[in-house]
Amino acid sequence: MNKSIEIQQQKETLRIETFSDGVFCIAVTLLSIEIGVELHGDVTDKELAHALLAKWPLYLAYVISFVNVLLAWIGHHSLFKMFLKPDNGIMVTNGLLLMLIALVPFPTKTLGEFLLTGGFKTAVIFYTAYFVLISIAFRLLWYAATRKAGILMNGVTAEQIKLTTRNENIGLICNAIIFGVAFINPLAALVFSFAMWVYWLGFA
Amino acid sequence: MNKSIEIQQQKETLRIETFSDGVFCIAVTLLSIEIGVELHGDVTDKELAHALLAKWPLYLAYVISFVNVLLAWIGHHSLFKMFLKPDNGIMVTNGLLLMLIALVPFPTKTLGEFLLTGGFKTAVIFYTAYFVLISIAFRLLWYAATRKAGILMNGVTAEQIKLTTRNENIGLICNAIIFGVAFINPLAALVFSFAMWVYWLGFA
Amino acid sequence: MNKSIEIQQQKETLRIETFSDGVFCIAVTLLSIEIGVELHGDVTDKELAHALLAKWPLYLAYVISFVNVLLAWIGHHSLFKMFLKPDNGIMVTNGLLLMLIALVPFPTKTLGEFLLTGGFKTAVIFYTAYFVLISIAFRLLWYAATRKAGILMNGVTAEQIKLTTRNENIGLICNAIIFGVAFINPLAALVFSFAMWVYWLGFA
Amino acid sequence: MNKSIEIQQQKETLRIETFSDGVFCIAVTLLSIEIGVELHGDVTDKELAHALLAKWPLYLAYVISFVNVLLAWIGHHSLFKMFLKPDNGIMVTNGLLLMLIALVPFPTKTLGEFLLTGGFKTAVIFYTAYFVLISIAFRLLWYAATRKAGILMNGVTAEQIKLTTRNENIGLICNAIIFGVAFINPLAALVFSFAMWVYWLGFA
Repeated sequence: MNKSIEIQQQKETLRIETFSDGVFCIAVTLLSIEIGVELHGDVTDKELAHALLAKWPLYLAYVISFVNVLLAWIGHHSLFKMFLKPDNGIMVTNGLLLMLIALVPFPTKTLGEFLLTGGFKTAVIFYTAYFVLISIAFRLLWYAATRKAGILMNGVTAEQIKLTTRNENIGLICNAIIFGVAFINPLAALVFSFAMWVYWLGFA
Repeated sequence: MNKSIEIQQQKETLRIETFSDGVFCIAVTLLSIEIGVELHGDVTDKELAHALLAKWPLYLAYVISFVNVLLAWIGHHSLFKMFLKPDNGIMVTNGLLLMLIALVPFPTKTLGEFLLTGGFKTAVIFYTAYFVLISIAFRLLWYAATRKAGILMNGVTAEQIKLTTRNENIGLICNAIIFGVAFINPLAALVFSFAMWVYWLGFA
Repeated sequence: MNKSIEIQQQKETLRIETFSDGVFCIAVTLLSIEIGVELHGDVTDKELAHALLAKWPLYLAYVISFVNVLLAWIGHHSLFKMFLKPDNGIMVTNGLLLMLIALVPFPTKTLGEFLLTGGFKTAVIFYTAYFVLISIAFRLLWYAATRKAGILMNGVTAEQIKLTTRNENIGLICNAIIFGVAFINPLAALVFSFAMWVYWLGFA
Repeated sequence: MNKSIEIQQQKETLRIETFSDGVFCIAVTLLSIEIGVELHGDVTDKELAHALLAKWPLYLAYVISFVNVLLAWIGHHSLFKMFLKPDNGIMVTNGLLLMLIALVPFPTKTLGEFLLTGGFKTAVIFYTAYFVLISIAFRLLWYAATRKAGILMNGVTAEQIKLTTRNENIGLICNAIIFGVAFINPLAALVFSFAMWVYWLGFA
């Protein structure tokens, strides 16, 4: 293939990855927007301290989503490192993924706000369902990259492709199991999520 | 032309495109800020589930605008790829376009919030009118690029210019028609918008 | 001077400029966050249309600030193009400028919300005072760049320095006059601001 | 070591630094979001002026946090300049640091809102405790960089490592002292913070 065309294609891939990085970066930082205490009139030191402590579910939801989006960002990069040329299939599936990532503040907020209410189970089901959707978008992005020749770089080995396919499948299956567990025991589903982090860090 | 001046000009073009990309990226991610459920006091799982489902117009508006801004970003890039040197005309028309893109969360929110109210028609007219403005800004940007020599790169063929002019005109006309349809049948106008996406993806 | 040190210094300058560009870009996009209509319960098409039109002061304030921040971004770039090496003086004055740019949504919101109230004059005085502060920060940044040798690049001529000093002074004086006019006739101050845009575009 | 592998590793380092820069940049700009006056109905010029002046604690908190995040950004860069290859330890500790930086708007808002209330002491304790956490994250990041060979670039001298370790330790100890002082005299803790800025600027 012509060398200058190849460089041009890599530039296009880089541009899309830079834009995607921007969405990950803004989404993760926007998670903080909803966090705050609402107290009106004069307050005492004790009241403020209690109000700050009482918001722990918001902090927990923030931490969970921050780590999840950061791991998704790392996973996104390890896919894009293999792409030579983004075609329409990549554009559409990557767009779908970004649409979901940009909206992560919504399930996060929902989880944080309803963690201590009678709506706890629904909040966890919603949150875990959301990350099943993200796994599906990742799986589709990888499918779009492998369904025909010419999208992955020449240097990518069959071994690497197999390993990535396996990882994406494991991610999807684990998130689906966590989602299923949420219906039976929401707390167990959250704990299972934390266990996944350690697993993924091994691939970072 | 002096080679180092040309490189300097391309760097200026890149800088403006990077800034523009930032505005597209932030605008698209800010779309998520307004989405959430407001329930106070303790709630049951059922109440939360109903509240989440009842917000579907916000989700729909989010998806529509996310796709529209992403398509606008792709279109913006395909124009900037042809620019050698941004003059004042490019700066002003591009500034106008960015001003509109940055405010997309406003018509989006309006569409989502009033989709199920008696203000549905006004919301759709406002939303479609807004995208007519964006099409006009695109058309002006392209006009600024072609109205005199020295702005497009030497490699750009008359064929490419003709095709781009045609695409920008079609975009403007289609959005104007959708806007007109919104006065008669708002739902049909939204459906027509979706049909446009498929068309534009062919040019991505 | 050692060539590789020079390249290293230019990389540092670029890094600070990229960060600054990010602040300009986010500040300008965040201007849109406050814009929206608040109507509760069911509404008619007419009510929504009226509510949308009634918000025109917010739109006007948005447009004014968007253009002002964009012009400030262009001005910021034309300074940084001349910098070889950012010292502490540049860091501090540039930090001051960014602190003011990031907070532009606040005077913008104030102008938009109180334009049609009895607080109109205060809103315009506050807004114009804010842009006097921004002009001062620009003037200090330029002072930090010229107060000693080694900060500007070797290629920068005495002519260029003189012209830039003149421009920064004119900017500061004009904004100070607009601020003064706001005390006598707030509307005239706003109109004077628009006239400035045309002037600045000549230097873009 | 193979030259092309080294370049690849530096690109990975740069990518993580660019993402981190994005988080710093967005966090610092989001600080402005909460600032505004809430007055309803018609107001007089005097009322608006008073309302604007009465918000000074919010402005003060904004300035304090803006400077703190900017200094943290400078410190972050001076660490990353020395990194050759980000391993999992760097990823995790840097992720922890970013998680804290992205949430700075929360303690900032808390400080600004409760500065003039009976909750002043709690607000300052919370704010200073938060910056102790940030210092710990910095210290962990530096520990992750030095705990084994191959992470720092070959050009980094033992002298530089010693100096950086000393700086990170001083930062942590000073923030811990400020935190302790906040329990006895919150105002003195804030003044001490300002004194630190002058000190850090010497290392910028």
